[in-house]
Amino acid sequence: MAWNSNLRWRLPITCLVLQLITVVLFGVFVRYDVQADPSWWLEKKTKNLSSDLENEFYYRYPSFQDVHAMVFVGFGFLMTFLQRYGFSAVGFNFLLVAFGIQWALLTQGWFRFFAKGRILLGVENIIEADFCVASTCVAFGAVLGKVSPIQLLIMTFFQVILFTVNEFILLSLIEAKDAGGSMTIHTFGAYFGLTVTWILYRKNLEQSKQRQSSVYHSDLFAMIGTLFLWVYWPSFNSASSAHGDTQHRAALNTYLSLAASVLTTVAVSSVVHKKGKLDMVYIQNATLAGGVGMGTAAEMMVTSYGALIVGFFCGIFSTLGFVYLTPFLESRLRIQDTCGIHNLHGIPGIIGGIVGAVTAAYSSPDVYRLPGIVHSSGFGSYKMEEMKKMQGRSQIFGLLLSLAMALVGGIIVGLILKLPFWGQAADENCFEDSVYWEIHEEVNTVYIPEDLTRKNPSLVPAVPLVLPSPSASICPVPPTPPVSLATPIPSAALVH
Amino acid sequence: MAWNSNLRWRLPITCLVLQLITVVLFGVFVRYDVQADPSWWLEKKTKNLSSDLENEFYYRYPSFQDVHAMVFVGFGFLMTFLQRYGFSAVGFNFLLVAFGIQWALLTQGWFRFFAKGRILLGVENIIEADFCVASTCVAFGAVLGKVSPIQLLIMTFFQVILFTVNEFILLSLIEAKDAGGSMTIHTFGAYFGLTVTWILYRKNLEQSKQRQSSVYHSDLFAMIGTLFLWVYWPSFNSASSAHGDTQHRAALNTYLSLAASVLTTVAVSSVVHKKGKLDMVYIQNATLAGGVGMGTAAEMMVTSYGALIVGFFCGIFSTLGFVYLTPFLESRLRIQDTCGIHNLHGIPGIIGGIVGAVTAAYSSPDVYRLPGIVHSSGFGSYKMEEMKKMQGRSQIFGLLLSLAMALVGGIIVGLILKLPFWGQAADENCFEDSVYWEIHEEVNTVYIPEDLTRKNPSLVPAVPLVLPSPSASICPVPPTPPVSLATPIPSAALVH
Amino acid sequence: MAWNSNLRWRLPITCLVLQLITVVLFGVFVRYDVQADPSWWLEKKTKNLSSDLENEFYYRYPSFQDVHAMVFVGFGFLMTFLQRYGFSAVGFNFLLVAFGIQWALLTQGWFRFFAKGRILLGVENIIEADFCVASTCVAFGAVLGKVSPIQLLIMTFFQVILFTVNEFILLSLIEAKDAGGSMTIHTFGAYFGLTVTWILYRKNLEQSKQRQSSVYHSDLFAMIGTLFLWVYWPSFNSASSAHGDTQHRAALNTYLSLAASVLTTVAVSSVVHKKGKLDMVYIQNATLAGGVGMGTAAEMMVTSYGALIVGFFCGIFSTLGFVYLTPFLESRLRIQDTCGIHNLHGIPGIIGGIVGAVTAAYSSPDVYRLPGIVHSSGFGSYKMEEMKKMQGRSQIFGLLLSLAMALVGGIIVGLILKLPFWGQAADENCFEDSVYWEIHEEVNTVYIPEDLTRKNPSLVPAVPLVLPSPSASICPVPPTPPVSLATPIPSAALVH
Repeated sequence: MAWNSNLRWRLPITCLVLQLITVVLFGVFVRYDVQADPSWWLEKKTKNLSSDLENEFYYRYPSFQDVHAMVFVGFGFLMTFLQRYGFSAVGFNFLLVAFGIQWALLTQGWFRFFAKGRILLGVENIIEADFCVASTCVAFGAVLGKVSPIQLLIMTFFQVILFTVNEFILLSLIEAKDAGGSMTIHTFGAYFGLTVTWILYRKNLEQSKQRQSSVYHSDLFAMIGTLFLWVYWPSFNSASSAHGDTQHRAALNTYLSLAASVLTTVAVSSVVHKKGKLDMVYIQNATLAGGVGMGTAAEMMVTSYGALIVGFFCGIFSTLGFVYLTPFLESRLRIQDTCGIHNLHGIPGIIGGIVGAVTAAYSSPDVYRLPGIVHSSGFGSYKMEEMKKMQGRSQIFGLLLSLAMALVGGIIVGLILKLPFWGQAADENCFEDSVYWEIHEEVNTVYIPEDLTRKNPSLVPAVPLVLPSPSASICPVPPTPPVSLATPIPSAALVH
Repeated sequence: MAWNSNLRWRLPITCLVLQLITVVLFGVFVRYDVQADPSWWLEKKTKNLSSDLENEFYYRYPSFQDVHAMVFVGFGFLMTFLQRYGFSAVGFNFLLVAFGIQWALLTQGWFRFFAKGRILLGVENIIEADFCVASTCVAFGAVLGKVSPIQLLIMTFFQVILFTVNEFILLSLIEAKDAGGSMTIHTFGAYFGLTVTWILYRKNLEQSKQRQSSVYHSDLFAMIGTLFLWVYWPSFNSASSAHGDTQHRAALNTYLSLAASVLTTVAVSSVVHKKGKLDMVYIQNATLAGGVGMGTAAEMMVTSYGALIVGFFCGIFSTLGFVYLTPFLESRLRIQDTCGIHNLHGIPGIIGGIVGAVTAAYSSPDVYRLPGIVHSSGFGSYKMEEMKKMQGRSQIFGLLLSLAMALVGGIIVGLILKLPFWGQAADENCFEDSVYWEIHEEVNTVYIPEDLTRKNPSLVPAVPLVLPSPSASICPVPPTPPVSLATPIPSAALVH
Repeated sequence: MAWNSNLRWRLPITCLVLQLITVVLFGVFVRYDVQADPSWWLEKKTKNLSSDLENEFYYRYPSFQDVHAMVFVGFGFLMTFLQRYGFSAVGFNFLLVAFGIQWALLTQGWFRFFAKGRILLGVENIIEADFCVASTCVAFGAVLGKVSPIQLLIMTFFQVILFTVNEFILLSLIEAKDAGGSMTIHTFGAYFGLTVTWILYRKNLEQSKQRQSSVYHSDLFAMIGTLFLWVYWPSFNSASSAHGDTQHRAALNTYLSLAASVLTTVAVSSVVHKKGKLDMVYIQNATLAGGVGMGTAAEMMVTSYGALIVGFFCGIFSTLGFVYLTPFLESRLRIQDTCGIHNLHGIPGIIGGIVGAVTAAYSSPDVYRLPGIVHSSGFGSYKMEEMKKMQGRSQIFGLLLSLAMALVGGIIVGLILKLPFWGQAADENCFEDSVYWEIHEEVNTVYIPEDLTRKNPSLVPAVPLVLPSPSASICPVPPTPPVSLATPIPSAALVH
């Protein structure tokens, strides 16, 4: 291939330019919200707040920290499952998210937190920014291993804008509810990523197929990501909900839905294997589908058994997607979905959107709960008569809009990323860290315990066994399986 | 052995049946507590609460998230120390806990959160459910590597019931205090698990002895578990304590006790080795004993130096248990305790129970503190005269009851699990992931950098070196050291 | 070398003596603060507090838990990057921090939390203790791989005292502000550690140079540390700030500064490599420089773009430090800085101190914010006239004092640690876990699936392939990839 994956000037310039732009725009636009500003004492006085605890910080910061850990640790490590792409998985995720949150603070600020020519910055903004980049993490999962960090930064740049516009239309114009982002984060992120990877289709990807699987330890690293996502997902779906019972309920429903999807994931994973064995890929991913599926309805009156049922089906459909749909998408539709995001975010995202619409349209709160629902949904009570019907329609429209935005946006961004000068790797070098990372020569260090050296010093090589330089660089990355076999070895042997 | 470890139908059916049962029971019984229900606005008005912050969610959710991370990440990774059992450790823990929390919400709901025919669900329930399954994680440690996931689900099913009954008797009938569960979680969980593993004794387990040790990286994965358990343990012991000073004090005491047990664990670990070297097994486990030992007394007036002293001795006894007691239990009493839970949860649990009894009986609060103690202990003041004596007796009785319940329950459940059709592995296949997990073939992928290929293309194998299929499946799991060398290789050697 | 690294009696005695001293001193001095004492009900009544939520626990405990995770998980795993020193990195960090927090509670208690002959213990104390030991974690980074655990305990003992004295002078006497510890934690910790390692200079360290690099998996373990430090750093810099807007603002500024330093770290990392490849060492460390650089100014009116600019330059200088300064320090100044703490904590710490001084001196709050600033800075308003000038000077003086304290203290402690009987390893055994840890023999366990045994049982070795004892113990630690086998090896072979 003629592509040049040397990023020496392109990557630094991209990073610095993007960073300088955000610095300037922050300087022009961003100021502290009154809750983070020394004028808070006045606000407290004016609004007659009894305590510093009424600062939004104390309502939301613990949830924010969980969300933050999910985005950086959770998504980052979830994608380390590939045997030779751990550095890129966790490192590029780190890079794109670090840029994405800054850019999202600006775009979401202009649309949603703008007052008197300024963006007002507080804990809600950083939660929303983390939500926004969660959708870029989702999309990253589709193109993992096949794009350069420059492409990721460009994708993030555009996706954050699209996300913000979509979210603004959904939440502010058509007044759909989507606290945990089944539609705005997961459905949008997944179909955006799938469209991009469809545009970026690589014909000869089977040349690097051998690297597109996991090894023993890489699967354990990925489980770190899975478990932190799973454990903190109740915070994700409740972080931006209204104070009090709404936030409380959102966390409970998510907790239940997630638990149910673990059991059905295990069930389907076992039944599709001819010896009933479990597959780590499904356990790492489909167990999370319950959280995605609760992304819209978590804060609503979905009921506890409703949450379990949603998780039940999300786990099943997500696992079946991995087994049957992903191979189909790849072979027939030319959609090469590295992490299977269609199964973890696409299908459960759509389920979540529909569940949200149905719950909004058909839940029937009794008279004592009505004011609470009005409060948590943010609608004035005058709307209550028609609320249920209308809200259901808004939700469905929001879902469709997210899909449309993802497809159109994905095509445009995909075409931009298809340009040949972004430093992408050749097909045979995909899923390989050493394209973009300096990998240290593997050194066979032999430790020499004191007493042994005395007994039989001749067995101990004086110099550490280092691979000779040329062969060393033939196999610079020995993630687990280290035998390199590089230089001509007389007869046989060797194996691994 | 005649056992059939193919779980293709048995595991899926077990998972689905259990999940369907909980869905139906949730539908019949579980409703949102007023704090998670839209009628919260009314509650706030009625009780004249000044702020949404008075919702229990804000008191307890941060602690809950720590407990949740401990149960899934902490216990899960702590058990990944075995070289070829990491998938099962973290994956089966995930499965049993995901079922266990749902089941515990029901059983604990019937006993402790029942009102007008309904279980009322709030943040306290999910903390208590996590506590309950922590005891099943403990028991899992004893049988790790020797049971099938079906056996684990069955064990969890029964253990959750026994736990709930025991806890109900302790906390509600005899009014013992056990906020962090020295008795109900650790003592009960440990002796239950030990009894089960005693019933399930495997005569020929030495056939898989070579897999019952750690390798370098598996010990590091286990340290992830250790550190998250250690760091969040103050939240564990304080999560369900009374608001205000009680929760505060419980966290402080646990923090101190844990710190002390690290130093004594290191001390004993070094002194029992003939060259003074440390052993990862002790550091991974006995450092946590201080948290277990504070499980009852943390919220009481145990004093800060009292907490240090408890941690001091817990670290010592726990480490000594690993060194001397575990081998004795295995060789003489036929108790094969994979993770040494007797040392981490059994001994320190009993110490914790006794410390709680002594603290309750002998702490002498002065007159200003008395109302505070009455508040935190939940007793009416009329009881204060005899409280100290009676409370000490209740605590001791609670400890004995936990032990009895564990032994009797463990025998019954052990006998159920001994039935031959649960898919358990043969003795020689214990501690081996590939019995229940699809393990990907190890592929020796050689990366070919562009410039090198030009220089000496003949050296580079065109096709990735894959093991030929038969030998590959002889050694499907190469956790760290992958060279298997199984097939007869002519001359020499080799290897690794 | 004549040094004896057998710690059998020395380490246990050190641990036990230190632990017994703290137990006794806690018994004499430490009592619960009123917020953690049963007399809290009286305090609430006296101060007319509306709710248990006004207990300091609810303001600070979530932040504390993040800080706690940073100190144990973050710093511990960050240092596991060395290929054969993961046990020691995470284990010794565990040990020294567990002792350090107890000792810091005492020393800081005497200086800062002392009333009527007692140290009053509450959540603020344990946050401050974690801060204090963070500086010992920093210093540990400089000497990593070259000191014994006894030396670390001694270093911690003295460093905690020096830290406390320095902090007392800064915060209480000259009234400098340093909420996140740019000066007291990072500058002091870094230059103290660098001075100690300078005194402990090892001439023949290149004998273990081959172990002073990372391998693939050790770099991923280190990224666990990096990401948890990065994600929780906003809690670190805000944990001890004043309630309300101050804590809120400190978290926001840190969040922004960290994000900016990721992009500039990637930029510089790429530009200094001749093929534009990234280096894991820089990504693991320099991305955190933004948090260090915000350690003083985070709670001040540094503005959001100011925070971005600080992160921007911290990322650049930190990465450049790794590339150019660390080799220079080692070759010319004989400062062997294992983790490059000078780049992560030294340089950004000084930047942070200066940024704090400039912000304090030149930020001009308008009239509505003034009372808020007075509140958050803890000064009475009578000082406001001269506050800005004076405060700037205090900050600079605090920075210089921290440096002086680090250098003088480092020399004294370094000389103590240079004594030959602390169990340090010989130069050729540095960076090697097996000096202080029992490492299990690597066993080549071959799993035998049932069906295969039937087909071709002769292929299956009956006994697991264990390395013959002598060669096994020649290479007891095979971290990941040990077989190199590269050069033409005549006949036999072996290895590892």
